[in-house]
Amino acid sequence: MKALFFDGSLALKDISTPEPRGDEVLIRILYSAICNTDLEILKGYMGFTGIPGHEFVGEVVTPHRKLSGRVVVGEINCPCGECYLCKTGRRTHCTNRSVLGIDHHAGVFADFMVLPEENLHIIPQNLSPVAAVFTEPLAAALEIFEQIRIKPSQTVFIFGAGKLGLLISQVFRLHGCDYKTFDSNPAKVVKAVDMGLNAFLASSLAPADKAEVCIDCTGSPEGIRVALEHLYPRGRLVLKTTIADPELIDLNQIVINEFNITGSRCGPFAPALNLLSHGFIDPEPLITKIFEFSEILKAFECAALPDTIKVVINHG
Amino acid sequence: MKALFFDGSLALKDISTPEPRGDEVLIRILYSAICNTDLEILKGYMGFTGIPGHEFVGEVVTPHRKLSGRVVVGEINCPCGECYLCKTGRRTHCTNRSVLGIDHHAGVFADFMVLPEENLHIIPQNLSPVAAVFTEPLAAALEIFEQIRIKPSQTVFIFGAGKLGLLISQVFRLHGCDYKTFDSNPAKVVKAVDMGLNAFLASSLAPADKAEVCIDCTGSPEGIRVALEHLYPRGRLVLKTTIADPELIDLNQIVINEFNITGSRCGPFAPALNLLSHGFIDPEPLITKIFEFSEILKAFECAALPDTIKVVINHG
Repeated sequence: MKALFFDGSLALKDISTPEPRGDEVLIRILYSAICNTDLEILKGYMGFTGIPGHEFVGEVVTPHRKLSGRVVVGEINCPCGECYLCKTGRRTHCTNRSVLGIDHHAGVFADFMVLPEENLHIIPQNLSPVAAVFTEPLAAALEIFEQIRIKPSQTVFIFGAGKLGLLISQVFRLHGCDYKTFDSNPAKVVKAVDMGLNAFLASSLAPADKAEVCIDCTGSPEGIRVALEHLYPRGRLVLKTTIADPELIDLNQIVINEFNITGSRCGPFAPALNLLSHGFIDPEPLITKIFEFSEILKAFECAALPDTIKVVINHG
Repeated sequence: MKALFFDGSLALKDISTPEPRGDEVLIRILYSAICNTDLEILKGYMGFTGIPGHEFVGEVVTPHRKLSGRVVVGEINCPCGECYLCKTGRRTHCTNRSVLGIDHHAGVFADFMVLPEENLHIIPQNLSPVAAVFTEPLAAALEIFEQIRIKPSQTVFIFGAGKLGLLISQVFRLHGCDYKTFDSNPAKVVKAVDMGLNAFLASSLAPADKAEVCIDCTGSPEGIRVALEHLYPRGRLVLKTTIADPELIDLNQIVINEFNITGSRCGPFAPALNLLSHGFIDPEPLITKIFEFSEILKAFECAALPDTIKVVINHG
């Protein structure tokens, strides 16, 4: 099969189709999408080599009583099911896990890939495969609500109007919150406003502007510092940004203001599919361009441009 | 009156007795105690000049229908009562507040001081004034339970067996938790063990030892990094340490492990008085030495020594 392979450099290669083991099934990829984590992997994040990619929609090829021929999305963490973290409801944090396209598990930028049956969710009939490719990042947005209680009456600042920031903004809009989304890139603010979101240039924030909840999805080391400056005492900062290098943080202000900080990662697929199939979240405006799989190297170039939101790959 | 005055250097001076304004009452100090924050103030923390000190027990001098002659302790934050933070239940975070002995309010290392009537709590009859001087730091320990839900079944690591660490350890013991207290100073570990606490040398911690809740009260910049290393994914770190300089923090691990971090400061006096008067918290073993007020400069020297726990001042 054709696959995108990363081993310090990125190239399309012919490699053998993976064979399912244990409760894994073989999946033919229909659509995939490029995430910021994929771009970080090309910079050395997680020291990953192999086939990257973890956002996908595919068709189950393996004969299976419930899944054969069905169009599915899949959770990316493959836990052991046996360790303390698995047994205490933290399967996405399993010490022994592999992670699709990120950690010891070949990813989705290929014709085929394998994933355990238990990771798969059949997409609702009324949901287009292109929209379903947003299930994984939308689940990551919903993870915030899995972790903390946010009152509909609370004020929320979302920093970053990229792929994840635009999904998170839509989720907070559905919650009824008085939210504002900020980005320093005018093109992204325009896109967000076009989508009907309350979006503003980051430079419009006055020092006295504060919120009860701040979400950092800037992808930038500066994000956490700016977010903390605009957080009320006893407020909550949700961190979505992963940055390879340690950052200088003023711990003093965290104690004095009794701030709460919560790191947030992968989330639940079922509610993400619910919101997408009901049409409450419309991901299609986020798509900057759809590339054919044969053009995936160009797709990565496009994904790295500052104005790009989401790049989708059609595997045909 | 005699007062300890800090203006870059520390000296006992004769100054005029403060006059109560508005709803303030005049209090004659019976006992005071030296807190880490006092030691930080001498290093420039908060840029404070004037009379430091905020932990006290005193007798109300001002004629007052309920308070005259009563022995009281007092909350240290003096809020405006009018701002958004005051009106949303965050009076200790009032933007316009003064703070006893810390921020624009003369402190307790003096013969007399003033505080608003609403800040005062009459101590229970069976509580000794020396024990009551621990009300403020015990309230700071209880603040953790005001902020977050901790299950009695959770494992807890407390880093630091100083004044605050020993009070926090006792509070977690009362909650039924499987807690462990760590310090790098053998003398402090011995003291904690003498008090019947589960205390250990920090060097005894293996890399795989983890807890669901970690409390940092080391007073050291290294504390947060060590605490995060020993926290389970989705665990909670409570930060009690204030450090003047920004610290290098690995934000990546916060996101990947979905850690929760909560800064924690001043707490509720009423439950602290309850626990002290019921004898559930015995603060007296924490007292390293009691100095006469005339010897307060020596008391500060003693408080800064590595093996010292709590230094109390008898104002006579």
